Amino acid sequence: MDRGRLEAFSDGVFAVAITLLALSLAVKGPGTGNGSLGHQLWREWPGFVAYLISFATIGIIWVNHHALVSNVAVVTRVLLFLNLLLLLFVVLLPFATNTVADYLGPGGADARLAVAVYGIVLLGMSTGFGSMLEWSLGEGHMLVPVPPDKRWSARRRFAGGGLVYLLVIGLAFASAPAAFALSGAVAVYYVFERTPSGAGGPSGDSAAR
Amino acid sequence: MDRGRLEAFSDGVFAVAITLLALSLAVKGPGTGNGSLGHQLWREWPGFVAYLISFATIGIIWVNHHALVSNVAVVTRVLLFLNLLLLLFVVLLPFATNTVADYLGPGGADARLAVAVYGIVLLGMSTGFGSMLEWSLGEGHMLVPVPPDKRWSARRRFAGGGLVYLLVIGLAFASAPAAFALSGAVAVYYVFERTPSGAGGPSGDSAAR
Amino acid sequence: MDRGRLEAFSDGVFAVAITLLALSLAVKGPGTGNGSLGHQLWREWPGFVAYLISFATIGIIWVNHHALVSNVAVVTRVLLFLNLLLLLFVVLLPFATNTVADYLGPGGADARLAVAVYGIVLLGMSTGFGSMLEWSLGEGHMLVPVPPDKRWSARRRFAGGGLVYLLVIGLAFASAPAAFALSGAVAVYYVFERTPSGAGGPSGDSAAR
Amino acid sequence: MDRGRLEAFSDGVFAVAITLLALSLAVKGPGTGNGSLGHQLWREWPGFVAYLISFATIGIIWVNHHALVSNVAVVTRVLLFLNLLLLLFVVLLPFATNTVADYLGPGGADARLAVAVYGIVLLGMSTGFGSMLEWSLGEGHMLVPVPPDKRWSARRRFAGGGLVYLLVIGLAFASAPAAFALSGAVAVYYVFERTPSGAGGPSGDSAAR
Repeated sequence: MDRGRLEAFSDGVFAVAITLLALSLAVKGPGTGNGSLGHQLWREWPGFVAYLISFATIGIIWVNHHALVSNVAVVTRVLLFLNLLLLLFVVLLPFATNTVADYLGPGGADARLAVAVYGIVLLGMSTGFGSMLEWSLGEGHMLVPVPPDKRWSARRRFAGGGLVYLLVIGLAFASAPAAFALSGAVAVYYVFERTPSGAGGPSGDSAAR
Repeated sequence: MDRGRLEAFSDGVFAVAITLLALSLAVKGPGTGNGSLGHQLWREWPGFVAYLISFATIGIIWVNHHALVSNVAVVTRVLLFLNLLLLLFVVLLPFATNTVADYLGPGGADARLAVAVYGIVLLGMSTGFGSMLEWSLGEGHMLVPVPPDKRWSARRRFAGGGLVYLLVIGLAFASAPAAFALSGAVAVYYVFERTPSGAGGPSGDSAAR
Repeated sequence: MDRGRLEAFSDGVFAVAITLLALSLAVKGPGTGNGSLGHQLWREWPGFVAYLISFATIGIIWVNHHALVSNVAVVTRVLLFLNLLLLLFVVLLPFATNTVADYLGPGGADARLAVAVYGIVLLGMSTGFGSMLEWSLGEGHMLVPVPPDKRWSARRRFAGGGLVYLLVIGLAFASAPAAFALSGAVAVYYVFERTPSGAGGPSGDSAAR
Repeated sequence: MDRGRLEAFSDGVFAVAITLLALSLAVKGPGTGNGSLGHQLWREWPGFVAYLISFATIGIIWVNHHALVSNVAVVTRVLLFLNLLLLLFVVLLPFATNTVADYLGPGGADARLAVAVYGIVLLGMSTGFGSMLEWSLGEGHMLVPVPPDKRWSARRRFAGGGLVYLLVIGLAFASAPAAFALSGAVAVYYVFERTPSGAGGPSGDSAAR
């Protein structure tokens, strides 16, 4: 299998999942008991924040996914299944986003659980991507390999973000809003922290400009 | 990163978003109290109009997006994030369309707010696209650069459409239907007003026939 | 603009629309008053038939769309907008399918209107595709042109299907089930009736095997 | 027609269908009578299991679909329609998954019917894919043909999985959970059992590593 179709399918899933994120934002219409539109939009602020964080998270995973896949030397069946593991959690993100949007506002135990569920899905995405990164460090798996002395640094920097998701899950049971804000901070972190794709390599080069 | 995957992901988001636009058109089924199908379809006229305007807006952004991206010399990380900024608002359009469809008919303060929300999302799309256009005017970013003496004219003509969205938002609080009609007029305007992609250049050439 | 991105965007819209068709098939769950699952599935037979007809219609349009586009010599802005006209109605098909699925069973005036709406959307798709076909017959628009003496025959054979949709709309007001069955017959007709793509031409050749 | 667009459209449908699977997981929000979030998530366990099985099934069909199509020598109209037959059932999978998710928990006759419906859709997918496999064994249809002496073995190994779906449907009426578990076992089976794509052929080679 060539890279092309792996990318096409993954891009399709990323594109659908990122677009479905906004489905959680629906207002209820002008029926009695729904309140004014202004009130509804105001009460929906967790939905808008969750949309922003989830959109940024999928967007960044997509950017890094491409950097990694474009450097893959050969698409193996193992890589396809690791990629499916990543997508398994990407597809769950609209559900988790929706859950946070519904339950963060009212607060209480449900808010804490909702943020924990959100953190678990983000951790799953991170684990899926980390497994692809780990695979890519294997012998002969990359067109422009990461030099051996930089591999641990690559792992450490990537795992840094992943560990924060563990913290998000734990923190959720202490303070749902704080844990939720922390998950947003990880998205910002990954904007600046890139997965390695071979220093000076072709894709690393253009991605770095 | 090559142009191909940027286009594939963006096209996927455009395609899903444009198809989800029609979800706001659902009728309620033959239950008691829903009224006859004819009545339901009649009452849904804002939904059909909103669908038409939003479809045209995404369609035209897609046409211009391609003209711009096909002329990009190198896909940088900055361009990827500007593209994500555009898509952030494209994905919100089905939500905004749905809101207008629900609230324009009843009229009143909610109708005015709904059209203002719609205008804000359109302004966001316009800003996202404008930031990509501005980036493309940078040194060495285009295969066939826009000549320096035409850059300000390019900016002015594009900003013309964007400014109207500001007007849509303001006008919404005076007259929701008028502001809504104005947002439709912008779509018609952009059918005839193209973003520059290098006079006489290959993509500009075929797009101009 | 090259053919590639026109195809990618169109394929995306076709793929999302064809997948959303099945959303109309949702059962209500095990709540009281919903009836047994068997009853619900049985009452939903118009939904399954509508799904089949709509799926076949989009599938066949997609096959013929590709045959036409693969033979296009140059992608012009006019072709892009004709293509958007086709997609405008493709996107409406899940809504129309849903409406027929909801209203055909109960019968009466609503069933007749529902089938007429369905026929209008199919006629729109047919008109959109016909306008692309007409454009493709223009001078220099095709890689392998249809010979002049075969153009009228091509138009006549395509219009044959389109005219039946007019008949579907009219017949709907006499008998909704008969009109609905007729729209299914058109899908079968188009399986065997292909749009011309240049006799002996490369794409016509492989599509004809 | 070239392979490219057949793959692009199919990948689009696979991607949308696999992403819509998670729509069945929505929680009801914090309204009265909905129970705590924890309770809702707990009661939804059939939804999570059904999501996993359906995701794995589409994922594996996608992997095998690519292996088959990448080895096709010429894309004929017959292959396009067999592919549409496969997609007809892929698109139904979110509906079937949703039905199982709703009805497996309460148990009883509805649970048995729900799992049978699920099995019928899986059998349809299997039949659609099997018809493409059978077509690919025809003279001159593959770039790297399966040797004649391996064709029956290929058919037998593929049909092995398909027959289990028949068993799932029958078993559903004895024990819904057992039949449901069996459908999950087939997904695991196909992870290790690949469709043949020409021993030593280019795509078989890279897929086998």
